[in-house]
Amino acid sequence: MSEEKNKLTPISELGEFGLIRHLTENIKISHSSTKTGVGDDAAVLEYGGSTLLVTSDILTEGVHFNLMYTPLKHLGYKAAIVNFSDIFAMNGEPRQMIVSMGISSKFAVEHIKEIYQGIQLACEKYNVDLVGGDTTASLTGLTISVTVIGEGDKDKVTYRHGAGVNDLICVSGDLGAAYTGLQVLERENKLFQKEEGFRPELEGYDYVLERQLKPEARKDICQLLKELEVQPTSMIDISDGLSSELLHICNGSNKGCEVYQDKIPVDRETARVAEELNLEPTTCALNGGEDYELLFTVPLSDFDKIAKRPEINIIGHITETPGDCKIILPTGEWIPVTAQGWDAMPPESRETEK
Amino acid sequence: MSEEKNKLTPISELGEFGLIRHLTENIKISHSSTKTGVGDDAAVLEYGGSTLLVTSDILTEGVHFNLMYTPLKHLGYKAAIVNFSDIFAMNGEPRQMIVSMGISSKFAVEHIKEIYQGIQLACEKYNVDLVGGDTTASLTGLTISVTVIGEGDKDKVTYRHGAGVNDLICVSGDLGAAYTGLQVLERENKLFQKEEGFRPELEGYDYVLERQLKPEARKDICQLLKELEVQPTSMIDISDGLSSELLHICNGSNKGCEVYQDKIPVDRETARVAEELNLEPTTCALNGGEDYELLFTVPLSDFDKIAKRPEINIIGHITETPGDCKIILPTGEWIPVTAQGWDAMPPESRETEK
Repeated sequence: MSEEKNKLTPISELGEFGLIRHLTENIKISHSSTKTGVGDDAAVLEYGGSTLLVTSDILTEGVHFNLMYTPLKHLGYKAAIVNFSDIFAMNGEPRQMIVSMGISSKFAVEHIKEIYQGIQLACEKYNVDLVGGDTTASLTGLTISVTVIGEGDKDKVTYRHGAGVNDLICVSGDLGAAYTGLQVLERENKLFQKEEGFRPELEGYDYVLERQLKPEARKDICQLLKELEVQPTSMIDISDGLSSELLHICNGSNKGCEVYQDKIPVDRETARVAEELNLEPTTCALNGGEDYELLFTVPLSDFDKIAKRPEINIIGHITETPGDCKIILPTGEWIPVTAQGWDAMPPESRETEK
Repeated sequence: MSEEKNKLTPISELGEFGLIRHLTENIKISHSSTKTGVGDDAAVLEYGGSTLLVTSDILTEGVHFNLMYTPLKHLGYKAAIVNFSDIFAMNGEPRQMIVSMGISSKFAVEHIKEIYQGIQLACEKYNVDLVGGDTTASLTGLTISVTVIGEGDKDKVTYRHGAGVNDLICVSGDLGAAYTGLQVLERENKLFQKEEGFRPELEGYDYVLERQLKPEARKDICQLLKELEVQPTSMIDISDGLSSELLHICNGSNKGCEVYQDKIPVDRETARVAEELNLEPTTCALNGGEDYELLFTVPLSDFDKIAKRPEINIIGHITETPGDCKIILPTGEWIPVTAQGWDAMPPESRETEK
């Protein structure tokens, strides 16, 4: 590969989303069973009157997880959850799962079993059947690739592209905790590596650590919306940070947005820990990622149904001009929404397991 | 993980198949849409009257492929083919594909594009829609995980477990070529690494190299069987070598087998190259793997339909006693069929890319 180095494009130049766009721009669809391909949280297939959703996520050691502080059972659980979350983001229910793993020689049977216990725990909790997979040797580290098949109601499946002008922008739960938890783990891990006999101090960080190590997918929000008879006009799960997902919905829907900074939900512990780490809590929410909450839009007429629900926060609304995406500050000034992506972890943390 | 080292079980002690059995022994199935889970080439799902087949394979750098001699486009093509082959082995047709990749920083956009070109070429040739995927950073090397969804006819889906006593054991094409091709590539690569200016000599190895680098999946055999009105009683694709797949069918069907060594089809070039490499051609066929031919059984009454087809060889028959699996030598003596598995490549070749 070396002689052509001078004309090569580093992947960082395009970023994750640019790369995917670049790779998939010429793809043709030829089966009537393929309804939607690349470009949403899950592909949408139609077989014999059923609407199926298919999603896949790959987690690699040192990038998505650091085994210095990630219990293997939690890792298996999280690998399942991130895929369930993609199915809920399409307003569907996960049904079957396939797990493939590349395993290096440092792992024993008992380690792999722990990962599987986490996967099975998640499958039991979310009522998903583990139906297959592939395990293989890997020269270097652990890779977990999970594919989940879900089922949706043809008329209820939600995409990124359905948001309309004046629709309310809603987010479930609170944001920024998973990222803040990761920063605590990274800090303690660095001290642990430096000082012999150092004991990590993790008391008082329960919530942010749980959000990082053992996230849940918001099945309950899909059920709540059904009970409230609210059909979201668009939906996505928050895996890469609120900013990135807002842009996916706005770009997909060819609209803009106004989001009020002081409406972005941040848990009290998250805010305290962020401050301790010299981080701006809202920045953790906007760019941090891995919260696996749902971001969705609903018609303005559903305001009354949504407004009083403690699990849901209305953070802004959709505007007309495509690409005009604003965070409105409490002062009345605004800043543009900017994307992040590619990696769940910041660059410095990627070096720790080399 | 270190303090528990003394009670850990190395994965090599169980092997790939033992590990999968161990991990999946307690799995419960709760959805009526799940017909068959772990334990065949693909999972079988039923949605709205359609029978779906789902399979997943993960390929890791240095184990399944060596980038010193594997063109990236071929790699993409092969990653697709090995999954299509699993669907054909269930007597179904591949329809949709999802590709996930872990990519290390040594790869540029152009490299990933080459892989995708190979994937798309395979999709076009086999009429499969690429509907999604995930690309992510990897600290170490390249990992490609492919999931394929296929469609089958409910009454025509073939499993590993349907073989009956006296059924004819059939194999498509010829065996051992892919493994022999790999040995040639490994030999030339070692010389290339040692001597500066060494030019690999690959003339006269066209067939075995193509079988290793650009295999095809036997869609044509499924079509032929349909035309001949032959419904296989069991079927599997030959990814790990004939021995291993024979045992899967016999164990799955709770039967034994007698396979005649001199009936095992080996191409003339394969035999010549094997000899040159001091390998026994039949051993390459039995243990080599990666041929992606189909191994299947048919009722004895279908003998006339099958016997004259040049694409299909009858190599033996199914016997009554479970586990009694024999290769009958030309002398009339026999040797037991023994399994291999876990890795496509022999141990020494796994070191080359470290």
